[in-house]
Amino acid sequence: MSLSVKHILSVKDLSKKDVDLILKTAENLQEISKRPIKKVPALRGKTVILGFFESSTRTRASFEMAAKRLSADTLSISSSGSSLSKGESLLDTVRNLEAMNPDLLVVRHQESGMPHLLAKAVKCPVINAGDGTHEHPTQALLDLMTILQVKKKVQGLTVAIIGDILHSRVARSNILLLTKMGAKVQVAGPASMIPAEISQYSVKVSYDIREVIPQADVIMMLRIQREREAESLFPSLREYARFFGLNKETMKHAKKDVVIMHPGPVNRGVEIAPDVADGPHSVILDQVTNGVAVRMALLYLLCGGEG
Amino acid sequence: MSLSVKHILSVKDLSKKDVDLILKTAENLQEISKRPIKKVPALRGKTVILGFFESSTRTRASFEMAAKRLSADTLSISSSGSSLSKGESLLDTVRNLEAMNPDLLVVRHQESGMPHLLAKAVKCPVINAGDGTHEHPTQALLDLMTILQVKKKVQGLTVAIIGDILHSRVARSNILLLTKMGAKVQVAGPASMIPAEISQYSVKVSYDIREVIPQADVIMMLRIQREREAESLFPSLREYARFFGLNKETMKHAKKDVVIMHPGPVNRGVEIAPDVADGPHSVILDQVTNGVAVRMALLYLLCGGEG
Amino acid sequence: MSLSVKHILSVKDLSKKDVDLILKTAENLQEISKRPIKKVPALRGKTVILGFFESSTRTRASFEMAAKRLSADTLSISSSGSSLSKGESLLDTVRNLEAMNPDLLVVRHQESGMPHLLAKAVKCPVINAGDGTHEHPTQALLDLMTILQVKKKVQGLTVAIIGDILHSRVARSNILLLTKMGAKVQVAGPASMIPAEISQYSVKVSYDIREVIPQADVIMMLRIQREREAESLFPSLREYARFFGLNKETMKHAKKDVVIMHPGPVNRGVEIAPDVADGPHSVILDQVTNGVAVRMALLYLLCGGEG
Repeated sequence: MSLSVKHILSVKDLSKKDVDLILKTAENLQEISKRPIKKVPALRGKTVILGFFESSTRTRASFEMAAKRLSADTLSISSSGSSLSKGESLLDTVRNLEAMNPDLLVVRHQESGMPHLLAKAVKCPVINAGDGTHEHPTQALLDLMTILQVKKKVQGLTVAIIGDILHSRVARSNILLLTKMGAKVQVAGPASMIPAEISQYSVKVSYDIREVIPQADVIMMLRIQREREAESLFPSLREYARFFGLNKETMKHAKKDVVIMHPGPVNRGVEIAPDVADGPHSVILDQVTNGVAVRMALLYLLCGGEG
Repeated sequence: MSLSVKHILSVKDLSKKDVDLILKTAENLQEISKRPIKKVPALRGKTVILGFFESSTRTRASFEMAAKRLSADTLSISSSGSSLSKGESLLDTVRNLEAMNPDLLVVRHQESGMPHLLAKAVKCPVINAGDGTHEHPTQALLDLMTILQVKKKVQGLTVAIIGDILHSRVARSNILLLTKMGAKVQVAGPASMIPAEISQYSVKVSYDIREVIPQADVIMMLRIQREREAESLFPSLREYARFFGLNKETMKHAKKDVVIMHPGPVNRGVEIAPDVADGPHSVILDQVTNGVAVRMALLYLLCGGEG
Repeated sequence: MSLSVKHILSVKDLSKKDVDLILKTAENLQEISKRPIKKVPALRGKTVILGFFESSTRTRASFEMAAKRLSADTLSISSSGSSLSKGESLLDTVRNLEAMNPDLLVVRHQESGMPHLLAKAVKCPVINAGDGTHEHPTQALLDLMTILQVKKKVQGLTVAIIGDILHSRVARSNILLLTKMGAKVQVAGPASMIPAEISQYSVKVSYDIREVIPQADVIMMLRIQREREAESLFPSLREYARFFGLNKETMKHAKKDVVIMHPGPVNRGVEIAPDVADGPHSVILDQVTNGVAVRMALLYLLCGGEG
């Protein structure tokens, strides 16, 4: 079996079969990262370009490890130290890189839609590693993999996504993927952080986390994106933490077997209290571990491997 | 057969036989980049240091891909994040890196002559990947390879090099290489951008591109190096584009089978119009593709491989 | 045989047996860097994270070469271009990277004690590649290896460490290691650069280099750490060079077979004159060469290899 899509740009493009194939492949490949020799020759001689034009540690590291564990060669491009500071347009840069015959291009960019634009310009597959406030499909896939590992199903589960929905590409991709796979999604956050277009999605909206927490099987806390000036949307971080943070108090109203997720990096004490982030319900580090597996699966499937 | 030189510092040092050997080897190695598995073990266990002390995306990427496709290990050094910010002289840095037993050093530097200086200080071969306004020999070699692919010969061809000759290491290396290989070279540009010492080369000089375009078999457009304050040499970019840009209008006077080249990154709409850059005469992306092959050939030959 | 420690954080933790094992292994592995094919498969499929959160060229390059020559995969993390600029704490970053199953973490950080903190937080071995003004254990090990190569023994030798003892992690690690291995250590420098706690070590202190040079079998010159504002501790660089620099004059009083060392990067003409740094007594470049071997040994031993 192979994917019905050439690129991974948006969760919207993925069929349920695609999602199943990606997750099944990820489960199979995950075991490699636990071996003493964490490497298989599956993508030997393939060139993967990692174009991270926006700050990233974990996602870049996750893709790079995924590529190397499949024996692909990687080439990192970012805006600093590159001819992008010479005023070259990204489109020209990418067309040029493509003339060097890479097999796959991973792109993170601060502008929404940039990976789509690049995908039209090049012949090789493109993976969106996060574009502006638009989508972050590999995050949604690894989140889904993590939910399935703990809950064994996603159909019928209630997932609460809490925080800055407005600026969150993680929220958008998760809403699209979770509703596609049959989960009930509830979003909650300050009114200033709930976008008007939320009505077009099949989600329940609340402005009070106490309404959504008791029913949630899974709670996804979002990052306050301090670098996107999200702080201007509420009085203070302390205020935010008090009304929308997950802590020992709010956890009292949660289900006994609730699963706590966060895409990272965590602002400890703001959207989530340290003892909750590190507590027994948290699967935050499992998300990171599964990220490598999901990215290995995507690199493998897009470079011609079969599931 | 092997090269008569130990380093690739200047086109001047290369004999015609060297050039033939490099291009023949590049043609042979080029096929590797088109295979599903783009990798051969030729340079396994060799260490190539990529010292790019001046901004670069494509040249750095080209060398890195070339090295990896031959299975060499690469190590990237640049001025940021390095002890160069501790005031260590480049010469000391390079002597230290050499004590780690690398097999080859690739250097790009904003100062003319720096690769020559380093080559005297170290035992391993050095490739000049562009030094100040001096030379860019691998660019000239890939340009020659590109001309030969399309025109099947270079002897007797008329090549017009247009633009900022004064600041262009690409122009200097191409003038030296093309005249060595028997082409007639014409340069054209604003008087402020034609260096006085142009008279020492066997080239025809013009200040009007309409004089050179009709006779040219190949037109090489140069970048306006906005980062080198080239803009101070003429009234405005618009003015430059009007008198020295290649566009649909000026192309009317060109030969039917003219070949259009540009070393990149392109300032679209300044030295070249987008429809010409992307048009049927343009071989700009072939230049990029050939760049990987030429660099594979040089790495291979300088690390002891035979042609 | 294997090491008695899991991490390499401080020279203090190493037994004499550990030191012997590391140096014996380094001697065995050193030969690899002199082969035409500088690579063995010992660490194939292992992932080594290089976290250099403070500027470094040579130490980072040394670890990266060491890893690659053992066929390990490397992943470089630094503060620029990473989510660390998003305000993520280093501890969270490292916990996240660990969830991706690396085999080893190398850390350089401007804060003393940071590698120890990280070692407590992660399951994989950690190597301290220099922390603040605290320790630089791999430097001390490579210095010891260099002394042993020339002098065949260290027991009973007199080693003079000269310069900015106060700010020097190199000095601290060397004092600990050399006294452990039986050398007599003398330190000398301006009073402002000798820390009060020097009395807790078994070293002789002097404020006049003319007192220590005649007796020294080995002279280690330290860097004036201009980036740590060391210059505020004496009137001028010229003054420093005159009283504490090693030059032709001061060398007249040294033993005929004295060995001159410097951890680099050298401030030529400040702590050491160019003709001494490059002269017949200098083993500065041997230190660099041995650095790769010592780091290969540590990577190998900490990833489960046996000596």
